[in-house]
Amino acid sequence: MTSRGLDSNLTSAAAGAGWAERVVHGDRRALARVISFLENEDLQGVDTLKLLYPRTGRAHVIGLTGPPGAGKSSLADKLISELRHGGKTVGVIAVDPTSPFSGGAILGDRVRMQGWTGDSGVYIRSMGTRGSLGGLARAAHGAIQLLDAAGFDYVLVETVGVGQSEVDIVRVADTVVVVAVPGLGDDIQASKAGIMEIGDIFAVNKADLPGSKRVITEIEMMLDLGMHPYWRPPVVPTVAATGQGVADLVKAIQDHYAVLSTADRLRQHRLEREKEAVLLRLGERLRREILQAWSADRLSELWAALAAKEIDPYSLEDKLYHRWKGA
Amino acid sequence: MTSRGLDSNLTSAAAGAGWAERVVHGDRRALARVISFLENEDLQGVDTLKLLYPRTGRAHVIGLTGPPGAGKSSLADKLISELRHGGKTVGVIAVDPTSPFSGGAILGDRVRMQGWTGDSGVYIRSMGTRGSLGGLARAAHGAIQLLDAAGFDYVLVETVGVGQSEVDIVRVADTVVVVAVPGLGDDIQASKAGIMEIGDIFAVNKADLPGSKRVITEIEMMLDLGMHPYWRPPVVPTVAATGQGVADLVKAIQDHYAVLSTADRLRQHRLEREKEAVLLRLGERLRREILQAWSADRLSELWAALAAKEIDPYSLEDKLYHRWKGA
Repeated sequence: MTSRGLDSNLTSAAAGAGWAERVVHGDRRALARVISFLENEDLQGVDTLKLLYPRTGRAHVIGLTGPPGAGKSSLADKLISELRHGGKTVGVIAVDPTSPFSGGAILGDRVRMQGWTGDSGVYIRSMGTRGSLGGLARAAHGAIQLLDAAGFDYVLVETVGVGQSEVDIVRVADTVVVVAVPGLGDDIQASKAGIMEIGDIFAVNKADLPGSKRVITEIEMMLDLGMHPYWRPPVVPTVAATGQGVADLVKAIQDHYAVLSTADRLRQHRLEREKEAVLLRLGERLRREILQAWSADRLSELWAALAAKEIDPYSLEDKLYHRWKGA
Repeated sequence: MTSRGLDSNLTSAAAGAGWAERVVHGDRRALARVISFLENEDLQGVDTLKLLYPRTGRAHVIGLTGPPGAGKSSLADKLISELRHGGKTVGVIAVDPTSPFSGGAILGDRVRMQGWTGDSGVYIRSMGTRGSLGGLARAAHGAIQLLDAAGFDYVLVETVGVGQSEVDIVRVADTVVVVAVPGLGDDIQASKAGIMEIGDIFAVNKADLPGSKRVITEIEMMLDLGMHPYWRPPVVPTVAATGQGVADLVKAIQDHYAVLSTADRLRQHRLEREKEAVLLRLGERLRREILQAWSADRLSELWAALAAKEIDPYSLEDKLYHRWKGA
């Protein structure tokens, strides 16, 4: 914002009001444009969100994550069917942080292909990495808020999850579904990245394959040893290809929401996430500003000096701090 | 530093030089004082570290973590014996973030009781939470650097580990030993908190108890499914009470160090940790400064306004940023 004058800030705020109006009235093209603003860090995106924030908090936000190949996209497709069947509307954010070049299009297309384009109760948007992973998480959070404000009953955020960034993206959800699958060495890569720890529900997909019983047992064993103050995550076998188990999965999602909605948990959960998000964004912003106060070459020299012990880490910290605070 | 004048900064730097000199010459009382400075955020602590930083990097830093009751203190005691037996000196930092009031004294005392006070090749210091957990991690990292600079061959940092702060404390180590134990529902509390993911070596202690085979199998299964580019973490059964398996554990620790020392891995590992620590400390410092720009009451009001949707998170972020940057 520092690089923009007052006039352009006012223009952006005025534009934001226009976009907000259109989003609230169900304008799909406006939705798409505002999400693009968020991706491109165009101020109009955040200005729209500022205005729409009071309208958020009505959607049930579901996170869906798991290793590549677990069948998350097919499962998402069947989840949408089941929710639509119940008369609910669904907004979907399909995030693929691992494919900077596809812009996440593969995931999104796979879902879109199933033919939701004609259904006004479903909106699907794919997002990929354009800049930093931190930037993607920020944009994805904004997109979730936008779909919430637009009035969708459910917002489904799907990520190809193996790293911290995916964890950061889905953990803002009210309910996190972790998809595991037999026969992929990958499933506990997910554990390594901390994905198993954030699951409120585990879907063991491709449950018709040999080895699914073992995966279920492994997850149950992990859960036996964890601490679950008010909700023990259920493990739900599914076969996305046939739709088997999907009704059970929806039931588990709704049960979780019901438990979360009692005793002020949902409000507290969301406030904690929102506080954390504010401080995280601030931290990211400052970290970026601090590092941007140096040229890439000069910054490499500083790290090299640290490695060579020509500068100590405390003096380096002061140097980074003062150069930036003085700027 | 902003609250101190130039004179007191010079005095602190001069005092730091005095302390550094004494630490290098093996003065135990000086070591103890400088660690207290670090705990109390007295500038003399960091000033001493700045001067000693060029002398760091010679010790092999071992992290020892695991749930309460796993027998870490007894195992630490036997590890010290084994290392002393090989003619090596050992500095120990025993951290107990869960006991703010004991000042970590229980852990430390338990080790100290074994009678190392007469041995000039061993130095043991306990640390507990005085202020924030972030502050403790910072002080513990400083203490590790100090013992390294003081010339100890090994620095052993022990934590009662169940949370993120313990992970932050031990992950600066070159080699992380995670202690598990049969029959404690607790061991995968550790997993929940991400502790299993940081282990370079797993010690299954109390291996003479029934159920230890099962714990070993569980850990091996987790490891089977993880990714280990150059080092597959070994699982070592130990019985700290009798010393059984402790020689194997020391062997595993030394093997890990040997693998880490090839192909520039150790230097890169340490530089990454050091960079991360610099940026983490900066982030913490800024977060603290940002929040301290408000009274506790006013800050609670801000969060309440966010929950009530009277302010949106983006405007709140700007508000926090500008108030602080302008200050």
